[in-house]
Amino acid sequence: MTTRTLTLEDRISARPGDFRVLTGDRPTGPLHLGHYFGTLRNRVRLQQSGVDLFVIVADYQVLTDRDVAERLRETVDGLILDYLAAGLDPERATIFTHSAVPALNQLVLPFLSLVSVPELQRNPTVKDEIVHSRQSSVSGLMFTYPVHQAADILFCKGNLVPVGQDQLPHVEVTRTVARRFNERYGPVFPVPEALLGAAPLLLGTDGGKMSKSRGNAIALSATADETARLIKGATTDADRHITYDPVGRPGVSGLVQLAALCLDRDPHEVAAEIGDAGAAALKRTVTEAVNGFLAPLRERRAAYEKDPGLVREVLRAGNVRANAIADQTLQEVREAMGTCY
Amino acid sequence: MTTRTLTLEDRISARPGDFRVLTGDRPTGPLHLGHYFGTLRNRVRLQQSGVDLFVIVADYQVLTDRDVAERLRETVDGLILDYLAAGLDPERATIFTHSAVPALNQLVLPFLSLVSVPELQRNPTVKDEIVHSRQSSVSGLMFTYPVHQAADILFCKGNLVPVGQDQLPHVEVTRTVARRFNERYGPVFPVPEALLGAAPLLLGTDGGKMSKSRGNAIALSATADETARLIKGATTDADRHITYDPVGRPGVSGLVQLAALCLDRDPHEVAAEIGDAGAAALKRTVTEAVNGFLAPLRERRAAYEKDPGLVREVLRAGNVRANAIADQTLQEVREAMGTCY
Repeated sequence: MTTRTLTLEDRISARPGDFRVLTGDRPTGPLHLGHYFGTLRNRVRLQQSGVDLFVIVADYQVLTDRDVAERLRETVDGLILDYLAAGLDPERATIFTHSAVPALNQLVLPFLSLVSVPELQRNPTVKDEIVHSRQSSVSGLMFTYPVHQAADILFCKGNLVPVGQDQLPHVEVTRTVARRFNERYGPVFPVPEALLGAAPLLLGTDGGKMSKSRGNAIALSATADETARLIKGATTDADRHITYDPVGRPGVSGLVQLAALCLDRDPHEVAAEIGDAGAAALKRTVTEAVNGFLAPLRERRAAYEKDPGLVREVLRAGNVRANAIADQTLQEVREAMGTCY
Repeated sequence: MTTRTLTLEDRISARPGDFRVLTGDRPTGPLHLGHYFGTLRNRVRLQQSGVDLFVIVADYQVLTDRDVAERLRETVDGLILDYLAAGLDPERATIFTHSAVPALNQLVLPFLSLVSVPELQRNPTVKDEIVHSRQSSVSGLMFTYPVHQAADILFCKGNLVPVGQDQLPHVEVTRTVARRFNERYGPVFPVPEALLGAAPLLLGTDGGKMSKSRGNAIALSATADETARLIKGATTDADRHITYDPVGRPGVSGLVQLAALCLDRDPHEVAAEIGDAGAAALKRTVTEAVNGFLAPLRERRAAYEKDPGLVREVLRAGNVRANAIADQTLQEVREAMGTCY
């Protein structure tokens, strides 16, 4: 008889009900295809597999790298529509806003007592985010960000956190906080595991990383015409023969990759099929692939948009559920810490 | 006609209803005469004058300089009994515990976005507290302490904060937070004023600052016998002639000051009256003065202690009121920040 170590993926498939996932976004703008293939698609898969999914709209975190969050409500509404269009189901996933859950936020205080300033200073992701910040000096909110994230994950006793490689140090802080709390006060929190996504780095229409702020991103909410226009203006190169070579030919390869992802095909095959037909043919293929792929999402989004009460109701219900769970966890924390009087 | 600038004290006397005061203690042990003459007496005066008084039991703050807060409930119960014995009236003052008010704690997050890390690092009181900390490294809770204090003060829109000289930098952080919040999001918070107390530095029975951890403090809850014993063992000196000379003769002068405060008399007069009668006579005078002064407090404390439901009810009612006010303020903050969805 042979024994085999179960991977995390095996364990999730075998017993999805054992897992509670915390994931989410800062509401800084419309979600685009980079988000979709990077994280959204995976969230929908986890939801379908029967995992208990929590999706936080991290509105306070918008302020970590800018002074004021503008048009928040409009951005949050769009984000929820993007979620629903992509397949998140508010009957199965708990979608909530950070600022609406006081007991979650309160956890930040006891958690801050478990982490030292040198530990916060060493966090490589915070260091990196500070470099890219729009602010002249680092705010206290940015500096303590990994501790807020620990509260976001642990308030619902999340034990699984899908992340990219660059977010691993944050999850490590959460694990440290959970471990130290349990050691000092008794077992309240799970020590969550990171679910490392094999998410592709999606290139935008200029060959750089797809990002709203670079203007190279195809938003999930873009129309077919906007999408066609953006792809038409994409950066290619002088070589008529289309190949998939992300390092040598980022512009062309970004487009090939986009088509391949939308068609669920291998990018080398997609490139080979176009061959000597050149950039114009490539762009036609990409436009058709993207618009074909986004068509059902757009249809759903348009339908949801017509129901102005829907977003309100999704957030209301999600916030009620998140508050009930946060209140319960905070009560356990109070009992463990001896702060029930 | 002469004009005169009104002092803060004048304004409080003239319109006490305009002022809401936030004050409080970390529950680290029994209150002693140093606390009484340093702050408690002044709180009772403010309460009597008609000011709206909020008293926070800062239980999370116990963790700023130690890992675990032990026997918290016992300490908190004793603190409330000390408050009541000293004359705080739960019908007029709101006495509440920090950890019981989630919406207050939530304010820490938006407030952290208003303060930079260099500003936190420069805070002289935090620097000093770090030096005296029992921990090997500074925790995130200690580092962000002035921001929590801003939340403690501003959640109830406190506009008056009685402080000692060393706490002035903390109040300055609160004023900065209030000003910046109002500038960015609209007028929600008052910019509170510091009420600098002319509180005497009370010396303990060893001539050093009266402090629980030095074992030189007379607790409000000490019995008459314990008090007599502590004073009997107090440090004096070889000079039989009693004078009041805090710098040259700290031991003797600490005792003289204690008697003078309890008798509400001038310390030089008290010393002159004893004159050549020596340290033994001084100690008799001090013992009588302290026990005479504490007798009514002890009587009230003993009566309150017999009612086991009293402390529970004081905290329950205080926490209900604090939560109602914090929820209201948080709602205003959400509206100002645009996080109502």
